[in-house]
Amino acid sequence: MKIVDLRSDTVTRPTQEMREAMYRAEVGDDVLGEDPTVRRLEETAADMVGKEAALFVTSGTMGNQVAILTHTARGNEVIVDDESHIFYYEVGAAAMLSSVQLRPMAGLHGRDALALAGAAIRDENIHYPKTTLLCLENTHNRRSGTVMRPETMGELYRLAKGRGVAVHVDGARIFNAAAALGSDVRAFTQYCDSIMFCLSKGLGAPVGSMLAGNREFIERARKYRKALGGGMRQAGILAAAGLVALQSVDRLAEDHGHARLLAECLAEVSGIKVDLNRVQTNIVVADVTGTGMTAGDYVAALKHRGVLAGTFGPNLVRFVTHRDVSRQDIDYAIGVVQNLN
Amino acid sequence: MKIVDLRSDTVTRPTQEMREAMYRAEVGDDVLGEDPTVRRLEETAADMVGKEAALFVTSGTMGNQVAILTHTARGNEVIVDDESHIFYYEVGAAAMLSSVQLRPMAGLHGRDALALAGAAIRDENIHYPKTTLLCLENTHNRRSGTVMRPETMGELYRLAKGRGVAVHVDGARIFNAAAALGSDVRAFTQYCDSIMFCLSKGLGAPVGSMLAGNREFIERARKYRKALGGGMRQAGILAAAGLVALQSVDRLAEDHGHARLLAECLAEVSGIKVDLNRVQTNIVVADVTGTGMTAGDYVAALKHRGVLAGTFGPNLVRFVTHRDVSRQDIDYAIGVVQNLN
Amino acid sequence: MKIVDLRSDTVTRPTQEMREAMYRAEVGDDVLGEDPTVRRLEETAADMVGKEAALFVTSGTMGNQVAILTHTARGNEVIVDDESHIFYYEVGAAAMLSSVQLRPMAGLHGRDALALAGAAIRDENIHYPKTTLLCLENTHNRRSGTVMRPETMGELYRLAKGRGVAVHVDGARIFNAAAALGSDVRAFTQYCDSIMFCLSKGLGAPVGSMLAGNREFIERARKYRKALGGGMRQAGILAAAGLVALQSVDRLAEDHGHARLLAECLAEVSGIKVDLNRVQTNIVVADVTGTGMTAGDYVAALKHRGVLAGTFGPNLVRFVTHRDVSRQDIDYAIGVVQNLN
Amino acid sequence: MKIVDLRSDTVTRPTQEMREAMYRAEVGDDVLGEDPTVRRLEETAADMVGKEAALFVTSGTMGNQVAILTHTARGNEVIVDDESHIFYYEVGAAAMLSSVQLRPMAGLHGRDALALAGAAIRDENIHYPKTTLLCLENTHNRRSGTVMRPETMGELYRLAKGRGVAVHVDGARIFNAAAALGSDVRAFTQYCDSIMFCLSKGLGAPVGSMLAGNREFIERARKYRKALGGGMRQAGILAAAGLVALQSVDRLAEDHGHARLLAECLAEVSGIKVDLNRVQTNIVVADVTGTGMTAGDYVAALKHRGVLAGTFGPNLVRFVTHRDVSRQDIDYAIGVVQNLN
Repeated sequence: MKIVDLRSDTVTRPTQEMREAMYRAEVGDDVLGEDPTVRRLEETAADMVGKEAALFVTSGTMGNQVAILTHTARGNEVIVDDESHIFYYEVGAAAMLSSVQLRPMAGLHGRDALALAGAAIRDENIHYPKTTLLCLENTHNRRSGTVMRPETMGELYRLAKGRGVAVHVDGARIFNAAAALGSDVRAFTQYCDSIMFCLSKGLGAPVGSMLAGNREFIERARKYRKALGGGMRQAGILAAAGLVALQSVDRLAEDHGHARLLAECLAEVSGIKVDLNRVQTNIVVADVTGTGMTAGDYVAALKHRGVLAGTFGPNLVRFVTHRDVSRQDIDYAIGVVQNLN
Repeated sequence: MKIVDLRSDTVTRPTQEMREAMYRAEVGDDVLGEDPTVRRLEETAADMVGKEAALFVTSGTMGNQVAILTHTARGNEVIVDDESHIFYYEVGAAAMLSSVQLRPMAGLHGRDALALAGAAIRDENIHYPKTTLLCLENTHNRRSGTVMRPETMGELYRLAKGRGVAVHVDGARIFNAAAALGSDVRAFTQYCDSIMFCLSKGLGAPVGSMLAGNREFIERARKYRKALGGGMRQAGILAAAGLVALQSVDRLAEDHGHARLLAECLAEVSGIKVDLNRVQTNIVVADVTGTGMTAGDYVAALKHRGVLAGTFGPNLVRFVTHRDVSRQDIDYAIGVVQNLN
Repeated sequence: MKIVDLRSDTVTRPTQEMREAMYRAEVGDDVLGEDPTVRRLEETAADMVGKEAALFVTSGTMGNQVAILTHTARGNEVIVDDESHIFYYEVGAAAMLSSVQLRPMAGLHGRDALALAGAAIRDENIHYPKTTLLCLENTHNRRSGTVMRPETMGELYRLAKGRGVAVHVDGARIFNAAAALGSDVRAFTQYCDSIMFCLSKGLGAPVGSMLAGNREFIERARKYRKALGGGMRQAGILAAAGLVALQSVDRLAEDHGHARLLAECLAEVSGIKVDLNRVQTNIVVADVTGTGMTAGDYVAALKHRGVLAGTFGPNLVRFVTHRDVSRQDIDYAIGVVQNLN
Repeated sequence: MKIVDLRSDTVTRPTQEMREAMYRAEVGDDVLGEDPTVRRLEETAADMVGKEAALFVTSGTMGNQVAILTHTARGNEVIVDDESHIFYYEVGAAAMLSSVQLRPMAGLHGRDALALAGAAIRDENIHYPKTTLLCLENTHNRRSGTVMRPETMGELYRLAKGRGVAVHVDGARIFNAAAALGSDVRAFTQYCDSIMFCLSKGLGAPVGSMLAGNREFIERARKYRKALGGGMRQAGILAAAGLVALQSVDRLAEDHGHARLLAECLAEVSGIKVDLNRVQTNIVVADVTGTGMTAGDYVAALKHRGVLAGTFGPNLVRFVTHRDVSRQDIDYAIGVVQNLN
């Protein structure tokens, strides 16, 4: 049976070109700063997002956690969206590793972001932790892959800087945000002190993410990466695939087209609701309440027919398009969805 | 000028009876378990709240933090109200000391508490921190001193226990809750694994709070108190005042009457709004927007006339009645408020 | 039966003068900075040790831990003697609260201190934690109450400052050090960035210690104290006794005389060895190997005759003289020791 | 100029066979447990060391830190050798991430290990952290790559288990230990609860280490790895090289022969001292005091002639043999050393 895997863009497998690049990769001991391929990847990545320097890390979680370690002191408060990956999916790491308090806020990814963030930054008071970091997520995974526009980021950035607060962006899918607006990624990344983005996910590299910022920040981050055990030896193998991945940011628009197509068809299926305004990138969240099925049942029924999706709440199903899903795969998935009753 | 201090019930000064008790107190080295007055206080306190054992701590914050240290492991998640003292006023200590992630929720002190808590307890998932503790606050300081009814606590307690989650109550003012309902405090404390309550504040002792729970819990808590530096030597001096304080729980009703009186008068002042439904204990929060003054201006104007209150937001002013505020003081404050324009 | 309690100087009970001072103490809410007696104590204490400011804390452990929190960042390394109170007796708090790594060194309290400390301060290296604090202990409890001379402290202080490392002194018994040399305590405290000393122990106050340093340090320390739950309300009660205690530093010489007397008699008892060179203050450590008894048996035998002492290792027994032990008590204890076979 | 790199066995580059295995590797999303190559590596590794399960991690530091996180609770004490990698080279991570106190002991890798460890495990006492973990290192990097014999490990293991303490082995080079004694690695690994060993270093894989233990331990460790950001997606690429690496454990004897040869020649060079008893594996530490050069000067002089080594103290130079150093390379290095004056 045909399998169309729409569970997540994390399932992408390395392309032939990546495999060849890894095969040929020139490597050295990166802990000693001697891996030329890692160096090249770090320079390329920094350049793409308009930052002075970048650091190769093994995962988005590591990139975010290293950023938090580097920006904060123990006991500080960090403002995050209450559906953010950092709060929701990182195993409580910010408290465990950095000993900081997250302040998760409903609406930080929405239109009231500026007012909310302004109210959340704490004044000096003996009862209060010091607010030192604001984290944004763009695109926002648990908010249907929606985009925070550069203007909004700019407002938040100015607010934060004016109050002595650093801004970190969990940009696991920042290139999807850029593709959605058809703009250079620097339109977004100019409004932050640090950004993490993933080489895996839609870009297809097998392993790895980048953390970018100014030189002094990255130098300190490198030491925190070592403390987490993220210092790798001949990491150039992985970096070689990462360099190939970075050449493919333009193809993300294709995934977005696929997601749109799927969303529009889903929206017409009886019993299913999709907020098409929120289908801005490669993520589609469908409310299946009207089908009489729970999300779990619905996902099981899809799986039975070769379409893999994920539950995203009791009645919500998430579909994610990516590099390993072709137009034909999408058509197949649409066919399955239309006949699922 | 007469001064009526309504900033907080933390300003209460020890009574003459307390001073005499401290003067005469029999003491020993409490780190060695040899202070008879501390022992007596711990036994008395445990008995009053229906728990096996209790521990004398120097503050409500220490009691809450020792409870969190004792109930959780690093990296765990703790559910709290988003206006709770633990989240709002404890300097980020839960993350700094216990390395746990707080999950602050709007509405945990409200009517949807059960559904919210049920949704917030995490299932097992490699991305999720483990939920191990639910903290309630009763009465709730930043929610106008309102009471969470025993039935609600009971529902939450059963939910939590069914999911393997412990329940701690920040009961800094739990005797105010009991006084408000005219019930024994055990009607509340039966529904928790641990409770902290203050001997200072409305009960008037100069220093100290109690943490109560089962014997094994308190034994472990005692060691965490030592790690925080809360082990005191001849602490019987303070415990002696605490024992006197515990005899005065019945007088809290008087403070509630004073708060009611003040609230009703405030509510009739032009430009001031008070939600009388929320004036359930010794705290009155007034919205002064209609006066054209900010909370800061209003508090300054009151102070100029000898009435001390606190700002509680840009337009909110908080008044707290307590042992050192007499009926005459309240009448004086009412007079000031009525003529403040 | 007469009881002479030589287990520790922590067992001292408040004097009549202290009780009266506590009874009359003028108090206020110290969290709001309104307790005049606490203020007076903090100013007096700072002045005595020649620092800009001081902070009242509930215990020596709290003073040390607040100092570590204030001087360091998470992940830093702190150099300590391997028999220091901070490493040995503070429940692992430096790692738990401050997330710092202690580097315990044998000999830091000895003649090679300077060379050892010099070698222990780390250079910059991606594998190394940053060394940010050196902690000394004076007098040194687990090293028989011996004194580190001001000249040695001065050498260590200059070394540390030259390498960007702060110096904190656990001076729980620093006034004993001063009394031993007959010098002003400032001869010692000039060579550190912060010092903690106890009002309880030999000075006899029921509860409390002081942390002193420069103004900026104490301001930040005050917030960490709050996070640990060490912010107390009407703490002036305890501070009043502390002020009395500070007037009695001169009487520590008397305890030292008693310790000397006891030590010299012990040294002549068959089977007991005492290194008289190390009996410099109020602590006497005796090796009882030659008696054929373990330390535990020996302590039990003493207790049977009304003399309380402590075990300090399998064959070591510790005696501590203090305010509540008179010359007659010492004579009694000597009599017991001489006839114990 | 010919370059012989003896700085560390971390510089080994992947072999042709590894590159081919990576090129062809079958991969999946390992966070979802779907990477068949990672699974095979984990099973193979577990089997080789006689444990139920194993976990692929990005570095030895990550393996050690995940082990510490999994074995301990915050505030615990962990016994380590004072020259151990965990204490010396892991950036203070045990305190920062796990909030545990290391107890570094001189001699834990020596003949008094049993007595020292026995004395270091703490009894229950309100002042003491709980001892929950003993870490050994075998072979021991900073102790010249010397081997701790299985019998010694067995004694320590029995002691620890009898006192309720877990044993973790930093076995970054455990296969070198096995090769040195000509025994199966399980002769060592039977005496521990968990072991970390490296696929990189002498075995030559580009990236990665394994943590092995019982099934329940590894399941919990997997979640801690995620919190550190060590969860990788298509990690099978790296695992493929790791599987090749594991087939080459027998060739480590060759590195040991090379080290021996080098050491014996060095020992005969005037001004250089080598303790040949300590040259047990692939590490040679030479004292160059007698040459009149510092270690730094000596290393610079070698480098000038194409031999890379590392300083290991003011007068100590370390040479490490490995897969990428042939017999000819060793002869070349010997020639350089003999003529360096």
